[in-house]
Amino acid sequence: MTGILPKGVIAPNLTPFRDDLSVDMARYVAHANSLLADGCVGLAPFGTTGEALSVGMAERKAALQALVDGGVDPKCLIPGTGLTNLPDTVELTRHALELGCAAVMTLPAFYFKGVSDDGLYAYFARLIEDVDHPNLKIYLYHIPQVSGVGLPVDLVRRLHQDFPDQIIGIKDSSGDWQNTAALLGIDGLIVYPGSELPLIEAMALGAPGCISATANLNAAAIARSVDLIASGRDDEAKAHHDDVRKFRQIVQGYAPIPAQKRLLALAGEQADWANVRPPLLPMSEEAGQELARELSDAGLGSGN
Amino acid sequence: MTGILPKGVIAPNLTPFRDDLSVDMARYVAHANSLLADGCVGLAPFGTTGEALSVGMAERKAALQALVDGGVDPKCLIPGTGLTNLPDTVELTRHALELGCAAVMTLPAFYFKGVSDDGLYAYFARLIEDVDHPNLKIYLYHIPQVSGVGLPVDLVRRLHQDFPDQIIGIKDSSGDWQNTAALLGIDGLIVYPGSELPLIEAMALGAPGCISATANLNAAAIARSVDLIASGRDDEAKAHHDDVRKFRQIVQGYAPIPAQKRLLALAGEQADWANVRPPLLPMSEEAGQELARELSDAGLGSGN
Repeated sequence: MTGILPKGVIAPNLTPFRDDLSVDMARYVAHANSLLADGCVGLAPFGTTGEALSVGMAERKAALQALVDGGVDPKCLIPGTGLTNLPDTVELTRHALELGCAAVMTLPAFYFKGVSDDGLYAYFARLIEDVDHPNLKIYLYHIPQVSGVGLPVDLVRRLHQDFPDQIIGIKDSSGDWQNTAALLGIDGLIVYPGSELPLIEAMALGAPGCISATANLNAAAIARSVDLIASGRDDEAKAHHDDVRKFRQIVQGYAPIPAQKRLLALAGEQADWANVRPPLLPMSEEAGQELARELSDAGLGSGN
Repeated sequence: MTGILPKGVIAPNLTPFRDDLSVDMARYVAHANSLLADGCVGLAPFGTTGEALSVGMAERKAALQALVDGGVDPKCLIPGTGLTNLPDTVELTRHALELGCAAVMTLPAFYFKGVSDDGLYAYFARLIEDVDHPNLKIYLYHIPQVSGVGLPVDLVRRLHQDFPDQIIGIKDSSGDWQNTAALLGIDGLIVYPGSELPLIEAMALGAPGCISATANLNAAAIARSVDLIASGRDDEAKAHHDDVRKFRQIVQGYAPIPAQKRLLALAGEQADWANVRPPLLPMSEEAGQELARELSDAGLGSGN
C-alpha cells in the first residue's frame, strides 16, 4: 500500500442525484466505471465536484461501498474525507482505508477562518493519530477559494517532512500556478494540479498527472495529453493539449458542477443527471444547449 | 411549542474537552446549569462558541441528551444544527426536536461560497420539508465572517414570509448594526444580536435580548442589562451596560473561544477547561493571566 497511482488523470467523479435528490447509486457506479474505461487511472470520489459536502456521512460510505461492490478496484480510489471536525473525518477516513482505498484526499477543517498554521498542523497531526491505521496515506486538499481555508506551502512542507509516510501528496485546486510550482519543489511530495490547464508545465516539474473536474466529460482526451507528455512527444502533446485546454476554459466559464451535469444529461438524454443538491441549483436546459453549442462550434465534443 | 423564549440573554455555551479532547460531559452539563442559575433564559448549545463544527455528529447528540438528562429543561434550548449538507442537518434537527428543544439555530450550507439566494432558499425549503416535524422552529444563524456564507436581509425576509411557522427568527452575529437593524424591521421576525454590545438599541427596536458568547463568563451582568432595559430604567440601564460592554470589548480583543475557556480554567483552577480542539489552539496561561488582569484593572470580574 503506497498510495501512489500510475501517471494519468484522476476524475473527481460527479455524484448523480435522482429527482428526489437521493444518490442514484446505479448511475454513480456506472459513471465511475465509464470514466475508468475512458482512460482515467483513478477516481477521487467526493471532492468538491462530487458535491461531497452536500452529501451525508452515511450516504458517502454507502456510495463508496457501492463503487467497490460495482467492480471498481479500491486501489484506484482516493476519496475525499475532510469535514470540519476530527471524529467524523476519522470515521470517513477509516472507512475508506478499510475498503482498501489507495489513499484519502482531505480538506483542512474549514469552518473557522484565519486559523493559525500551527492549528492546522495540530489538526492533521491529530487526524493521523486518531485514524491510527497502517495504510493511511493522505493527499492534502487545497481549494481555498471554496473551502475558505488554505494550506500555505510552508505548512504543507512541514506536514510532509514530519509525516512522510502519511502526508504523501496534495491536490492543488487553487488555480494559482506559482503555488503549484512551489509545492512541486517540496522534496518527495506528490502534487496533482486540480486542473488540466497547467498539465504540461506541472508534469515537467514532476507531477504525475492531474485531478480534474473536466475529466467527468473529457477523460479520454486528458488521458491522451498525459500519455503524450509522459512519452516526450512534445509537439504532438502541445497541439493535442491546446484543444483539451480549450474544452476546460469553455466549461469553466459556467458554474462548473451544474454545467457538467447538464451536459451529461443532454448527452445521454437522461434529464435527472442535471440534478444538484441545494445550495447549488441546476443549469437550465437552455443554458446547457448553449454550452454544448459553444463546445461544438469550437470543434470539441460535449461529453464522453 | 412556539419556539419563543422569554426576554433575556441566551448563552451559546462552551463545550469543555478533557485532555484527550473528548467532550467532558459532566462539566458540559454543570456549566450549562450554572449559566441558567446565573440568569440566562436559555442556552444555544453548539453555536460557533461551542466549537460546534469541531464536534462530531454522535458527540453532539450525546451532549444534548446529557443536558436534558442533567436537568436542563429542553424548552430553554436552541441548539445549533447547521452543517454543510441536508441529510445530516436533518438528523441533528430532528434529534433536537425529539428531545423537546424549543427551536434550532441553523447555519446555511457553508461549503460552497458565492451561491445564489435562490440556492440558499432552496436549501432551507428542503430542510423544512425533510425534517417534516410539527414542532420545527428555526432561528437562522448569520455569521458570514466565520461561515463564509451570509444570509442577505431580503432572503431572510422571503424565508420568514414563506415559512412563517418554521423560520421564526435569526441570530445576527455579523457585528454589523445596520444589518441587525434591517432584520429588526422584518415584520414578526425574532432577531437576536449575537453580542450584548448593541443590546439597548436592539431592544428598542424589538429584540428580546441577545445570544452572546460572553454570557459564558458574564451572564448575570448581561441578564441585569436586559432586565433594566426591559423595565424602562434607562439611566440605570445605560450606566450598568457600560461595564457590560467594556467586559465584552476587552475579551473581544483576544481570540474569543480560547480566551473564555482560559479564563474559566483560571477562575476554577481547572486547567483542562482551557482545552480547545484543533484547528483552534488554547490560549496560554500567561496570556490568560494578562487578560484577567486587564479585566480586573478595568474594575470587572473575570468570569462568573
